[in-house]
Amino acid sequence: MGYKRKLGAQKTIFFATSNLNKSKEASDILSKYGIKITRVNVKTTEIQADSVEDVATAAVTQASKMGFLPIFVEDAGLFINALKGFPGPFSSYVYRTIGTRGVLRLLEGEKNRLSEFRSSVAFYASSDLKKCFSGTSVGKISEKERGTHGFGFDPIFKPIKGDGRTFAEMTMEEKDGLSHRADALKKFADWYLKFGAENML
Amino acid sequence: MGYKRKLGAQKTIFFATSNLNKSKEASDILSKYGIKITRVNVKTTEIQADSVEDVATAAVTQASKMGFLPIFVEDAGLFINALKGFPGPFSSYVYRTIGTRGVLRLLEGEKNRLSEFRSSVAFYASSDLKKCFSGTSVGKISEKERGTHGFGFDPIFKPIKGDGRTFAEMTMEEKDGLSHRADALKKFADWYLKFGAENML
Repeated sequence: MGYKRKLGAQKTIFFATSNLNKSKEASDILSKYGIKITRVNVKTTEIQADSVEDVATAAVTQASKMGFLPIFVEDAGLFINALKGFPGPFSSYVYRTIGTRGVLRLLEGEKNRLSEFRSSVAFYASSDLKKCFSGTSVGKISEKERGTHGFGFDPIFKPIKGDGRTFAEMTMEEKDGLSHRADALKKFADWYLKFGAENML
Repeated sequence: MGYKRKLGAQKTIFFATSNLNKSKEASDILSKYGIKITRVNVKTTEIQADSVEDVATAAVTQASKMGFLPIFVEDAGLFINALKGFPGPFSSYVYRTIGTRGVLRLLEGEKNRLSEFRSSVAFYASSDLKKCFSGTSVGKISEKERGTHGFGFDPIFKPIKGDGRTFAEMTMEEKDGLSHRADALKKFADWYLKFGAENML
């Protein structure tokens, strides 16, 4: 309650992304914490790193230079065990090229469907106040694409804690209860309301 | 001949790469121009860009900061038409994860096997003297892996100008006559001997 009361005075946080779906999800999750975000449509240069944490941290440093502060970026990847972590931090490129069908093809006949969605939220208020939050969702790759909600690899990912449906078969509310992105954003929101916001008001 | 005579006085050029095979190829090609290279085993942070030119240019700027000058880097990618350019600038990551077999699997039953290897050599002597050279090799993806020479996707790439063998079925000398890397390095060597070396001696 104490946190909520502060929010009237709280300024917006900028979210640097060109992905409208991502922005919608983040807005939906953070609004439950009373945190208001404003999307900044900026394409940062992503680095080729093996972790989404490194990609997000490098991207937010770059995004911070535009002067919209405080700001955060979110980077996510799907890590498939049987494919040595592919497509990992390159998930959006892989989605744009070979797509979900390509990934299903690579797994044809493969019994080990275990995979993990990872998300990193990198936040930057000043050079003294920056932080990265990570979230995961363990699941299995389905045999077929199912569902039309969400985006990216959602139609082929069934979270272990779910009921067998893919992310794309869930409402945004249901996905928010299970997703890597929600996991990371909730950690961020908890921290922001406790420690971050006070330093920024 | 004029160029060759200068070479006694010429200092070495540094080649920033952790890939020994790449270094061997570059050394082999450039030695024919009398250019001597010294490998610097450095892992630069690659950016996620859609072109190998951008990746190489960003990498050499970073590598130049170590102080070994003049220096160059080389970045290459295999762009497959039927896969919208995949794996493109992410070829080494894709090779390390799904490998040549993964790529062949994605192309099973696909008649359009057209693809292109692209290479970019980015050279840096000073902030006033930097340049990027690009080379290509058009070819087709074979139905199976063939050959044991070379590295990366060489066992599945048959250059159009060749005799049907893959890069991995050729000697280094034969590959140098047809490869994207040799194409870029030769353009670099021509320029370096004409204009670059004079400014650096």
